[in-house]
Amino acid sequence: VSGSPGVLMAAEIAEQPIALRRLLDDGAQAVADVARQVAGFAPHTVMFGARGTSDHAALYGSYLAQIKLGVASGLSSPSTTTVYGARPDLSGVLFVAVSQSGGSPDLVESVRVAGECGALTVAVTNAPTSPLASAATLQVDVHAGPEHAVAATKSYTCELLALYLLLVGTADALDPVSLSRLADAAQSTLDTGAAADVAGRTYRFADRIVVTARGYSYPTAREAALKLMETSYLSAHPFSGADLLHGPMAMVDAHVPVIAVTTPGAGGSAMGPVIDRLRERGTDPLLVGPQDGLPVATDGVAEELWPILEILPLQRLAWRMALDRGLDPDRPRGLQKVTETR
Amino acid sequence: VSGSPGVLMAAEIAEQPIALRRLLDDGAQAVADVARQVAGFAPHTVMFGARGTSDHAALYGSYLAQIKLGVASGLSSPSTTTVYGARPDLSGVLFVAVSQSGGSPDLVESVRVAGECGALTVAVTNAPTSPLASAATLQVDVHAGPEHAVAATKSYTCELLALYLLLVGTADALDPVSLSRLADAAQSTLDTGAAADVAGRTYRFADRIVVTARGYSYPTAREAALKLMETSYLSAHPFSGADLLHGPMAMVDAHVPVIAVTTPGAGGSAMGPVIDRLRERGTDPLLVGPQDGLPVATDGVAEELWPILEILPLQRLAWRMALDRGLDPDRPRGLQKVTETR
Repeated sequence: VSGSPGVLMAAEIAEQPIALRRLLDDGAQAVADVARQVAGFAPHTVMFGARGTSDHAALYGSYLAQIKLGVASGLSSPSTTTVYGARPDLSGVLFVAVSQSGGSPDLVESVRVAGECGALTVAVTNAPTSPLASAATLQVDVHAGPEHAVAATKSYTCELLALYLLLVGTADALDPVSLSRLADAAQSTLDTGAAADVAGRTYRFADRIVVTARGYSYPTAREAALKLMETSYLSAHPFSGADLLHGPMAMVDAHVPVIAVTTPGAGGSAMGPVIDRLRERGTDPLLVGPQDGLPVATDGVAEELWPILEILPLQRLAWRMALDRGLDPDRPRGLQKVTETR
Repeated sequence: VSGSPGVLMAAEIAEQPIALRRLLDDGAQAVADVARQVAGFAPHTVMFGARGTSDHAALYGSYLAQIKLGVASGLSSPSTTTVYGARPDLSGVLFVAVSQSGGSPDLVESVRVAGECGALTVAVTNAPTSPLASAATLQVDVHAGPEHAVAATKSYTCELLALYLLLVGTADALDPVSLSRLADAAQSTLDTGAAADVAGRTYRFADRIVVTARGYSYPTAREAALKLMETSYLSAHPFSGADLLHGPMAMVDAHVPVIAVTTPGAGGSAMGPVIDRLRERGTDPLLVGPQDGLPVATDGVAEELWPILEILPLQRLAWRMALDRGLDPDRPRGLQKVTETR
């Protein structure tokens, strides 16, 4: 554990191609075994439970469940069970809890209750011996390795990949070409990090910022905003591009920096009308994906895996802005690595 | 349609007790008929589709589905079908679309597709002849009456009540005593609006604000933040109390106004540790619910109906702040009443 500001977060950002490769090389077989058991269970619905960064991974999982696995899905709040004592009938439901530490008591409790209510439970964690993993019937280890910076980076991208392996694997629809390209694509994306440093300088004195995206990339917007709040104490707002048009657009003007994830694909195309409206409002959105913004190396990687790549320049941006503002992104004020909520 | 700033929004805020009573007197029987058909269908899962303010009503519905109806539930993004062409197996699923206008093309399309995929579809709208209502198998009219201000108020509380009648009615667990008290409780809560005016003065020059709550009241935090963004262009952040501890707490300090919904009950009690942490960070949270904050008249009304009351002083706060800042809350910049997203 070092003393220089941001050393931990920088190292963990840089380690992501290695961590992703480790999960694919050392962990994918175990996830495939879990996916086979889930396929045998044939869930009609997938419910997710998670908090913070892992909640954004769960949101990605919910898109995968509906689009790739072809079942109903949704995010459950642990409070339904821990605060109100809900005991829904979850027969036929797959309950997936996602957590880096596997240590939050309310998540452990919601997995226990989900199992009692008939769900098949899976814990997706970076801590295979954690209370959460013990409480679940099946376990997926995301293989991110020890994470020391308070702001999660490599555990997030490894959670995304693990959820892809689990849910798309259950549908027997994994894309081996994309998977073989993924770690190199992550490295190529990280290699263009200088663009994020330049953007960080542009936003150095901003107080608020809006991050917007659609579809698979909406979790990217959510996670980027959280990184900016955690490390740079910015007032960072994530919006789905569609929801932005339903009200929040009013608080956007030329003084508000906007970041839009528009990697060319179905989700990026659907952002077209949103970008038009943002420009009408006088903003100059920074685009994540296109070459003239923060580039993302997607060559040969299918769109549903892009969220693993798109977050990389945004992690770098958050790290850079924190340093430029004299803050230590490894130790944000008011936070601990493991958050215990009940 | 008047010219004085905020006249429309003020009238629609004030009309809510009448609108709620109208739904109970003139609409509850029709909702009960729909609930009986839903009960016959016996859904194993409820999925919701909505945008903006109606998305917050849908979130409330998702809590009700899990806690009161006792089934799995979740919010679906229309983009899964409209952008990615998802065709999930929704047999046994109740799909509830919520929209004031019933006019957004992406919602209409997701209802159509949900029906094709096997779901029983219900449109909960303020426009029973809208394209959305036509696309659904069953219709619930929220009876809010014409809404002219761009910032939705009465349509929101009527959507909440309609979802309560639909989902708790399907479980045959309506609380007639609470329902008979509701409109009077709304009027009593509105009668204490002066407290919101005082709070509005305190926050007049704020740039960012955090609104936090747990459980049934979390949608209240989301909706209050949206009103503040729409009408006063504030950078308003809604967080579940638990998620606030997982990261965003870092961007909160004594300079950041915080509003916490803590109406005494299970949800309010669960906010205790969050309030403690907020005070440690130097903030002085304004409490919604307790007498020394923005009071909410809950006498004789069950906790699951409190969201209909808690939003009232927060609507008033948003309206007041907009006027004090020289803005017209009836016509926020950059917005239209019906938002068309695809």
